[in-house]
Amino acid sequence: MKILVANLGSTSFKYRLFDMTDEKLLARGGVERIGSEQSPVKVVVGEQTEETSQPVADHAAALRLSLEQLAKHQCLKDPAELAGIGFKAVHAHGLTGVQRVDDTVLAAMEAYNDVAPAHNPPYVTAMRLLAKELPNLPLVAAFETGFHESIAPAERLYAVPFDWAAQHGVKRWGFHGASHRYIAERAGTLLNNRDARIISCHLGGSSSLCAIQFGKSVATSMGMSPQSGLPHNNRVGDFDPFALPALLRATGKTLEQLLDELANRSGLLALSNGRKDLRDIEAAAQQGDERAELAISVFVASIRHYLGAYLVLLGGADAIVFTGGIGENSATIRAAVCFGLDWFGISLDDVRNKEAKGEAAIHGTNSRVQVWIMPTNEELIVARQTKDHLARPV
Amino acid sequence: MKILVANLGSTSFKYRLFDMTDEKLLARGGVERIGSEQSPVKVVVGEQTEETSQPVADHAAALRLSLEQLAKHQCLKDPAELAGIGFKAVHAHGLTGVQRVDDTVLAAMEAYNDVAPAHNPPYVTAMRLLAKELPNLPLVAAFETGFHESIAPAERLYAVPFDWAAQHGVKRWGFHGASHRYIAERAGTLLNNRDARIISCHLGGSSSLCAIQFGKSVATSMGMSPQSGLPHNNRVGDFDPFALPALLRATGKTLEQLLDELANRSGLLALSNGRKDLRDIEAAAQQGDERAELAISVFVASIRHYLGAYLVLLGGADAIVFTGGIGENSATIRAAVCFGLDWFGISLDDVRNKEAKGEAAIHGTNSRVQVWIMPTNEELIVARQTKDHLARPV
Repeated sequence: MKILVANLGSTSFKYRLFDMTDEKLLARGGVERIGSEQSPVKVVVGEQTEETSQPVADHAAALRLSLEQLAKHQCLKDPAELAGIGFKAVHAHGLTGVQRVDDTVLAAMEAYNDVAPAHNPPYVTAMRLLAKELPNLPLVAAFETGFHESIAPAERLYAVPFDWAAQHGVKRWGFHGASHRYIAERAGTLLNNRDARIISCHLGGSSSLCAIQFGKSVATSMGMSPQSGLPHNNRVGDFDPFALPALLRATGKTLEQLLDELANRSGLLALSNGRKDLRDIEAAAQQGDERAELAISVFVASIRHYLGAYLVLLGGADAIVFTGGIGENSATIRAAVCFGLDWFGISLDDVRNKEAKGEAAIHGTNSRVQVWIMPTNEELIVARQTKDHLARPV
Repeated sequence: MKILVANLGSTSFKYRLFDMTDEKLLARGGVERIGSEQSPVKVVVGEQTEETSQPVADHAAALRLSLEQLAKHQCLKDPAELAGIGFKAVHAHGLTGVQRVDDTVLAAMEAYNDVAPAHNPPYVTAMRLLAKELPNLPLVAAFETGFHESIAPAERLYAVPFDWAAQHGVKRWGFHGASHRYIAERAGTLLNNRDARIISCHLGGSSSLCAIQFGKSVATSMGMSPQSGLPHNNRVGDFDPFALPALLRATGKTLEQLLDELANRSGLLALSNGRKDLRDIEAAAQQGDERAELAISVFVASIRHYLGAYLVLLGGADAIVFTGGIGENSATIRAAVCFGLDWFGISLDDVRNKEAKGEAAIHGTNSRVQVWIMPTNEELIVARQTKDHLARPV
């Protein structure tokens, strides 16, 4: 049973192809700069990489070309061999979990276009094109919010008029569900304890922390929208809406324009004076760039804020797990997050932290809490969810 | 040297009169229901209480009547004996600390009328009336934000366009400064440790936590506006501004109307289905009212959220202090906040917690962190700040 997991950007189509009989990754690839004159089309099968370049008009064309490339590399005879395409979808009004993509689901996603402005519009457009391209192929949306359905009302609800949650979906949905779910499962295995209290730190282009117990999410740092929680590469993180009236008056901008600033030109980008990628920010900070140092200090303070909140929520922790591009690769951020936690009995092994490659424990010998790096695998989670969904009686 | 500290509401004028040579409280009193047919006018001197009732047109009349009552009770010969009136002012654009009230200060407060809608408009109106009533008497505003000026940029800044902080004041100002400053000083004395790491929990009609080290604020739960942080009696607490577009569309309300809902009909009031006072909510919860239980659970979760964040920020704590109407009086809330913290070595003494009256230590014998109830004294702080300000060379 072959399942393609697609990751859609406004001008990109990336995928992984799994054989779900044994969860083997058969190939990965995709198309970048869709709509331009020369779009790179790439496939990686085992050690082999093929990359061509040609005009690719839209996401439907990107899918078509990708399937041709997969056929050429004997990963997939023809599209009919696919059981379905799974999507790591972000947000929808009144919907979560795993859903067969149809007009209702697409309309629910569109209804939250301005709640998740970076994610929903390109997904909806691309999904429509893909559904047209292969009308008989099941498209399955595994929503990022699904893993957080287990969060109790005390952590879930804002202190707002009560009907706003049920009627308008105004509550803490949480995101990065595929990643945190993967960490919950993987940490359960590695700690040999399915009941473990885990704090999963997904740090990357966008970031969130998740408190996990008994394999389930009990709290997460993102709220109603994927702009909340920790600062992201260009999105604001937590923010006080009562700054808006002062900003509306002072800047002469509209609410729409201000929210656009908060969703696209805020976060680490704004603090660091124009750098979006933490690697660039870290390099600049090492050169003594004060704004880069500031961006890092705000980011780390925010991670530690939620780390502390979740230590108390869980009544302690069995493991802190770092994942995502930054979590897996920045020894500096990991060290800064765990700095000065002797009082809690938490310590890093500096050498292990610096030299770690891939999945690794990095805590000190006497640390009361295990600290791990676990490369996440969101696509595998989506492939599993898609498989399970397709196996359900209709 | 006599100083009157005034606490202004839209229809109330409360005061305390101090003799600042020895910081003795000479009298307290005030006027309620200003503008109504029968406004109660009250003064308490030692064990004596006098209460009359008459029409009181505005805050100027309230001050006049209060000064007459104080003269009658021999607390104050005439207004000229007052060195000044101190105000626990809340928020101003580009201003903080202690300020002599003049047109510039009043304009700066007015500029944030919609950032602090419950506080600034009545203060500005009343201050103008009082200045007219007694034009030669110095009026001094001790801003609630002043104590938090020591907070480092990492905890202070939102991840927004950089010039928003300097130009528009969009940063975490923090409030309840007089209360947290009092706790910082008092806890330093009671712990006999001026460098202690204190987590001050001011829980009342509005609530905030403050992390204190070396007697200074290093973080606090309220941000740009006094609506943020923990849920308040009728104000929202932390909220994701990206819920606003969805709400604007769904409800047909304006931004102004939605912010009014968040500032006046949210918080515990909204969650508990119409109860604003925690004592009523606790009573209803004891009768099994689910909405009352929900309100309490959200409130406690939010306190514990910041408690954990500040434990990590401070690298542990020497004391957790409860203050404010709820903090001083609700054994249930204190027990719920400290529940299940054995992992941290934090424990309450259940009997001490239940039986405590006034200033009291309530931690268990082996608790690694001291837990205290300390009745706050915001007025004394404002009186001291007013005295110091008046002593400054002009």
